[in-house]
Amino acid sequence: MKASVQVLDELVVRTPGKGFTNITQRLNDWVALTRVSTGIVNLYAKHTSCSLTINENADPCVLKDLADWMADIVPESRCYSHADEGADDMPAHIRTALTAQTLSLSVDAGQLVLGTWQAVYLWEHRRRPHQRRVLCHLLGEPTPLETKSKALNQQIQARHDPEAWAADGGIETELDCLVDQLHDLAET
Amino acid sequence: MKASVQVLDELVVRTPGKGFTNITQRLNDWVALTRVSTGIVNLYAKHTSCSLTINENADPCVLKDLADWMADIVPESRCYSHADEGADDMPAHIRTALTAQTLSLSVDAGQLVLGTWQAVYLWEHRRRPHQRRVLCHLLGEPTPLETKSKALNQQIQARHDPEAWAADGGIETELDCLVDQLHDLAET
Amino acid sequence: MKASVQVLDELVVRTPGKGFTNITQRLNDWVALTRVSTGIVNLYAKHTSCSLTINENADPCVLKDLADWMADIVPESRCYSHADEGADDMPAHIRTALTAQTLSLSVDAGQLVLGTWQAVYLWEHRRRPHQRRVLCHLLGEPTPLETKSKALNQQIQARHDPEAWAADGGIETELDCLVDQLHDLAET
Repeated sequence: MKASVQVLDELVVRTPGKGFTNITQRLNDWVALTRVSTGIVNLYAKHTSCSLTINENADPCVLKDLADWMADIVPESRCYSHADEGADDMPAHIRTALTAQTLSLSVDAGQLVLGTWQAVYLWEHRRRPHQRRVLCHLLGEPTPLETKSKALNQQIQARHDPEAWAADGGIETELDCLVDQLHDLAET
Repeated sequence: MKASVQVLDELVVRTPGKGFTNITQRLNDWVALTRVSTGIVNLYAKHTSCSLTINENADPCVLKDLADWMADIVPESRCYSHADEGADDMPAHIRTALTAQTLSLSVDAGQLVLGTWQAVYLWEHRRRPHQRRVLCHLLGEPTPLETKSKALNQQIQARHDPEAWAADGGIETELDCLVDQLHDLAET
Repeated sequence: MKASVQVLDELVVRTPGKGFTNITQRLNDWVALTRVSTGIVNLYAKHTSCSLTINENADPCVLKDLADWMADIVPESRCYSHADEGADDMPAHIRTALTAQTLSLSVDAGQLVLGTWQAVYLWEHRRRPHQRRVLCHLLGEPTPLETKSKALNQQIQARHDPEAWAADGGIETELDCLVDQLHDLAET
């Protein structure tokens, strides 16, 4: 297994303001599109007032408690020098620094490898809705599935050659039966 | 140097409850098994109530002070909505979010590249002992050592060819002396 | 696109004591030297009392507010067991644990991919100036630009062979005209 494919893309995430947007499914959909089976995907939030975090995907109270604790520890009421862009701006920068700005996750069998109770969240720290960009950079190997289906295609192509079939002793293989069935299906 | 090898594995770490388990040696042992010389290893804790951190490996007071500070800043005494799994559960989720969930480390000469005073710890945030899984995903190149020994083998093979030796002017090289010594050793 | 090049290096950063050193330009200069066009660069601070962070590059008040908040939340005045190396030592270890020790960034078109307002900082947590080492480990692909110019060079070389030109029917291609112009320029 080696890292023979590299895919770099950008995921646009629309946030409804402060809170957590579960991006796990979108990441998995993107990974599926890349057709990479095993690799490392690097996630990067291109902003200084939102971040990435992995936390529980079951009880929504976990995210509420996390947000409440953060609101207390990095309060908007504090006196900041950088205050021109609103009382929620400087706390957003601090909250970003305290949580993940980059996450490196494993991909196996064409999916993110996550624990049972884990989801990947974009954590919006600003009050207003924002359009956020998450860089997705994947280094890995193409799916074994694709390799198999390619191999099957080649075998089917080979079977369409009457001489190859004859060279094989004219025996009806399982593949030949399958090809016949496909022809039947195509004609109905 | 390129990334021609990819190894994905899972390290099981048994924790004695709250505290730090130094996993540096186990990681280095695993890296040695992969036979990768230079690469990037991605570590990922598949849980939402324990995390990864790098800190001092010398004075154990550092870890104690770090744990005490964390206990004060994310207290178990706080009133959380998510409280069904015990008073230590929600603080564990917050402490996880504040520390590293993924770490990307360099491997060189078949070992993790760490600073002199650095160790990699799994930080258990729950009271009770747990069995934790750390994903280890390595992208890299096989050991130059192996490459060198292969090259040496080839040189030794070449020296066993009398014509190659003759073509070299029949001069006794350092390698020839070494081969002679090996023969002597093999015969004793 | 695959990961065919791997470069591992160390950046020495001299810090003036507590505060932020913007290392974005130095990182980009280093990336340029590697001649890697697209890849993932892993940054790693080999210390337990400084860290890495990405934050705003515009208003310096952001960094001041961030440092002030950190000074309040991880105070030097707290009573620590590990106090031999000065009152700023143990807080430095905790601040390091709260912020990034490794960052994985994307490189594209031979440059770090960062958001408009983002810079990469080494965050010194000790009072005195230090010489810090940041490991830079890049996995990626050589620049397409280089590939193109190499291909052009090969085409130009081929055009210098009169027989190849004749084999092509002796037609004056766009490339031949370009080569002629280069010759003219070289002669003036």
